Amino acid sequence: MKFIYTLLTVIIFSGCAGIQTQEKNNAVNPIERKHYGSWEKQIGYTQVVKVGNRLLISGTTGEGDTMEEQVKSVYQTIEKILKDYHTDSSRIVKELVFTKDIEAFKSTMALRKTFFPQKLYPSSSWVQVDRMFIDSLMVEIEFEVELP
Amino acid sequence: MKFIYTLLTVIIFSGCAGIQTQEKNNAVNPIERKHYGSWEKQIGYTQVVKVGNRLLISGTTGEGDTMEEQVKSVYQTIEKILKDYHTDSSRIVKELVFTKDIEAFKSTMALRKTFFPQKLYPSSSWVQVDRMFIDSLMVEIEFEVELP
Amino acid sequence: MKFIYTLLTVIIFSGCAGIQTQEKNNAVNPIERKHYGSWEKQIGYTQVVKVGNRLLISGTTGEGDTMEEQVKSVYQTIEKILKDYHTDSSRIVKELVFTKDIEAFKSTMALRKTFFPQKLYPSSSWVQVDRMFIDSLMVEIEFEVELP
Repeated sequence: MKFIYTLLTVIIFSGCAGIQTQEKNNAVNPIERKHYGSWEKQIGYTQVVKVGNRLLISGTTGEGDTMEEQVKSVYQTIEKILKDYHTDSSRIVKELVFTKDIEAFKSTMALRKTFFPQKLYPSSSWVQVDRMFIDSLMVEIEFEVELP
Repeated sequence: MKFIYTLLTVIIFSGCAGIQTQEKNNAVNPIERKHYGSWEKQIGYTQVVKVGNRLLISGTTGEGDTMEEQVKSVYQTIEKILKDYHTDSSRIVKELVFTKDIEAFKSTMALRKTFFPQKLYPSSSWVQVDRMFIDSLMVEIEFEVELP
Repeated sequence: MKFIYTLLTVIIFSGCAGIQTQEKNNAVNPIERKHYGSWEKQIGYTQVVKVGNRLLISGTTGEGDTMEEQVKSVYQTIEKILKDYHTDSSRIVKELVFTKDIEAFKSTMALRKTFFPQKLYPSSSWVQVDRMFIDSLMVEIEFEVELP
């Protein structure tokens, strides 16, 4: 939006067009925040931050007792978020996977790929770490989405 | 800036305006680097890299013997950086928290939230890892800021 | 590109110019993916995702039996990628280093700096984690590049 405003300003200054725009300070390069639970503000984070066409999605964890269940749950949450922004997994540009057991995560490869039906995959890093926010969590994935 | 240059070029080519611009190669999409200590170049990193409206802030660590002290120190450093760029914590869009003890980090939640007085929080991922650059460091946080 | 299209559209609507553009849906804000091996699609990731001027490079690992060899191999791969996009290490804006042994990684500091001959370094975070995709890997580095 910022560039459109600037564009219009320049055009107006160039005497090319009569369109009037008002550049409100708080409308320039706005940051939009979308919360999916009341706990977010209590903890102090935002599930989805939108800036320009970019969605910065907080490290997302899933429900379940097995790695398979948690991975499925994470991607179902992401599918819901993508739907809220009228887009799909082909617009995920980056993933950062933290897991407590990378061999178990690797065994869910086929499942994970079903969430990319167009076979268009993000750039991705996978690392094994000590633990996540809650001890029972086996995987946490951070996403970046580029809206069309 | 790049878009402005392109814009002007297009307008000029369109015969709409008489404004002249010079497109210097090194001025297009410049990367600005800000160092906060001489050790940065010795180690080989830059504390703050600015590209467009984005500030990419290196994993920041803090001084102190307790998690509380280190967390406070990290955010005081970030406050100083934000001030240097004439902005505040509401423009932090992303955080990536690495800590050696996530339970200890969670116990500083109230303290951390005081650095977000507008209650506008970034997207955030928190993971527990083995260690940071120096063994005594308990927490390291990477930030991304979107300037207004 | 998106801004150029929008720009032209606005100019056309403003009656300033006669240039015609076609706004193809798939041409607006395109995501370009570059694969460097057939295993990427099998695993489900993309080595380099290009969006706008940004290159998002997947966590890159290297060959070799020592930390020194693996670090050298990682940066040689990155040099090749940078060359493919007609740029160099001065356009790396962000690095995220995961290593199994941060002291060993620190000992390769001088070697790593040779890949930044212009002494223009990215923002960077270095953390020690449990392990990477394959157990023998000692280091994995994620990169973001801003093309000129």
